[in-house]
Amino acid sequence: MSPLVPGPGSSAQVAGLEREEALKLLGTVPWGRLAFSHQALPAIRPAHHLVDDGDIVIRMHEGAALLGRVVRSEVVAYQADEIDPGARTGWNVVVTGTATEVLDAVELARYQGLLTPWIRSKTGQVVRIRPEIVDGYRLVRAEGL
Amino acid sequence: MSPLVPGPGSSAQVAGLEREEALKLLGTVPWGRLAFSHQALPAIRPAHHLVDDGDIVIRMHEGAALLGRVVRSEVVAYQADEIDPGARTGWNVVVTGTATEVLDAVELARYQGLLTPWIRSKTGQVVRIRPEIVDGYRLVRAEGL
Repeated sequence: MSPLVPGPGSSAQVAGLEREEALKLLGTVPWGRLAFSHQALPAIRPAHHLVDDGDIVIRMHEGAALLGRVVRSEVVAYQADEIDPGARTGWNVVVTGTATEVLDAVELARYQGLLTPWIRSKTGQVVRIRPEIVDGYRLVRAEGL
Repeated sequence: MSPLVPGPGSSAQVAGLEREEALKLLGTVPWGRLAFSHQALPAIRPAHHLVDDGDIVIRMHEGAALLGRVVRSEVVAYQADEIDPGARTGWNVVVTGTATEVLDAVELARYQGLLTPWIRSKTGQVVRIRPEIVDGYRLVRAEGL
């Protein structure tokens, strides 16, 4: 059960999401942002994603910045949301987990077919994130507050 | 001058943004995502922002996760975008720089008045990011590709 936690003086309430619900919502949108450490600095890049058997599979859609970068078993965070600022409704999900590059040719071809970035990268790099922590909330319009 | 770099086999082209143009675009949208290190792990949270005299001033709009967190002179990345996936147009900007919490009462009150999160945080924490690196690109529809 997701408790409703009203923000003080706010016109939106926050309802925490269970893991399954959060991953399901993540799977309803095609893209989000990957946060990772790069040369000991925090970095963030847009990516396309899908949810496959509980894992997040992503493909970068920015050309240059990640071309030379190969992710092998490092911890990353991936975030997606769908927010209606006017209605103050929507949801936000953040997954933290271990990222590993997909190298198997059959898997890679399948994911590349499913994940078409707006800008094709030369490498077509695809990364699988095994979610360890799944955080999410839904904004619920607070009637009468 | 921003060079046009066509992606191979893509229907979108990428035009690099100059620093001034990127910050200007960032200032046209009200919110983005902050990437930072938390307990040695990458973390990412939505935030509201404004651009003030070349600095990015942000206010978290997620309640619980950042309430206890005080950012004092650490390096963070902040990202915002405005993308039309159908038209494959839009832009993406990432700023990397040093974040410092705004503690001056007058400044804090001013920024809190300008930055109204969907969910008011108890602390009303406001953070200033001094951009050291500004990366950005614009997606341009590639006619005839």
